[in-house]
Amino acid sequence: MFQKSLTKITEYAKLLMEETIKPGDYVVDATMGNGKDTLFLAKLVGEAGKVFAFDVQPEALQNTTKILQENKVNLSSVALIHDGHQNIDRYIQGEIISGVMFNLGYLPGGNRNIITKPQTTIIALQKCLDCLKKNGLITIVVYHAHMGGQEEKEEVLSFVRQLEREKYHVLKIDFINQREDSPFLIAIVKK
Amino acid sequence: MFQKSLTKITEYAKLLMEETIKPGDYVVDATMGNGKDTLFLAKLVGEAGKVFAFDVQPEALQNTTKILQENKVNLSSVALIHDGHQNIDRYIQGEIISGVMFNLGYLPGGNRNIITKPQTTIIALQKCLDCLKKNGLITIVVYHAHMGGQEEKEEVLSFVRQLEREKYHVLKIDFINQREDSPFLIAIVKK
Repeated sequence: MFQKSLTKITEYAKLLMEETIKPGDYVVDATMGNGKDTLFLAKLVGEAGKVFAFDVQPEALQNTTKILQENKVNLSSVALIHDGHQNIDRYIQGEIISGVMFNLGYLPGGNRNIITKPQTTIIALQKCLDCLKKNGLITIVVYHAHMGGQEEKEEVLSFVRQLEREKYHVLKIDFINQREDSPFLIAIVKK
Repeated sequence: MFQKSLTKITEYAKLLMEETIKPGDYVVDATMGNGKDTLFLAKLVGEAGKVFAFDVQPEALQNTTKILQENKVNLSSVALIHDGHQNIDRYIQGEIISGVMFNLGYLPGGNRNIITKPQTTIIALQKCLDCLKKNGLITIVVYHAHMGGQEEKEEVLSFVRQLEREKYHVLKIDFINQREDSPFLIAIVKK
């Protein structure tokens, strides 16, 4: 399983989720995009669980509905929410979430001018921390090679570095023999 | 298992080893120290496998013999070698090794003036890479808060960053909401 996770940083994020999420859990896909993580999470939590997936682009909701249907996922266990992840508290209250996945950057294959922005990303991260259960996990894959990516990377790193070590484990996982602008992974676990 | 690995960076190194090593494998403890990793590896490879453990300090060999005996490990499956890890090729030839563990710094509880040195560490790393099997793993826990630690950290990072990405996966794993001089982990997997 660890060997498979080495092919891509997104696979590493999935490995950590697999080790954390159990059937029946409530989880969040904070950046729905093409729905790959929504599908992955839906399979992990099963019909007894729930995936809350967020995106501001209608295209993301269409693509995700399609991929879920193709994979015969019961749509009643997935909430596709057409709203920014910074508004997560409109839909989820209390420490009920076991896992949250973020992919920061733009929608692969979509409009590269529509990117996640540091201001809303930080608000979303804080709100996700607030609704995380004990031992809950947030994974953040940080793409930063695009215009605006460097700024978001710096702000996200500053935010997670100052998280109290008494309350959270914060890991940064890098493939360091690749290009400097390769994506990396941040993993946060609530103690 | 992932949750347990978050308590300490050394536990994270063990998690990756557990996911890689099978009974009967040949492995190396490049920095025997108090023998904790030697014991851990001996349990993973079992009586059909072999642990080659290196240290320049006689104290390390004494402590390790004791901990292995206390844990009823068959000593025939462990070679405690009183030599520097830079001489590993005197004892091992060919691509036969599945895992190598390094802890860079000084012997915990021992003489803090006897530390691993960048020059010999880099030679040892290169020789370990040469004797690694396909899918084999090297873990390096880098302590760098002690005198000389900063220099070793920089040299080791430079060395692993230039490893060809066609031949090796190189990961760096940090707890980033801790003190800046906290130890971190490097993991190298041969493709």
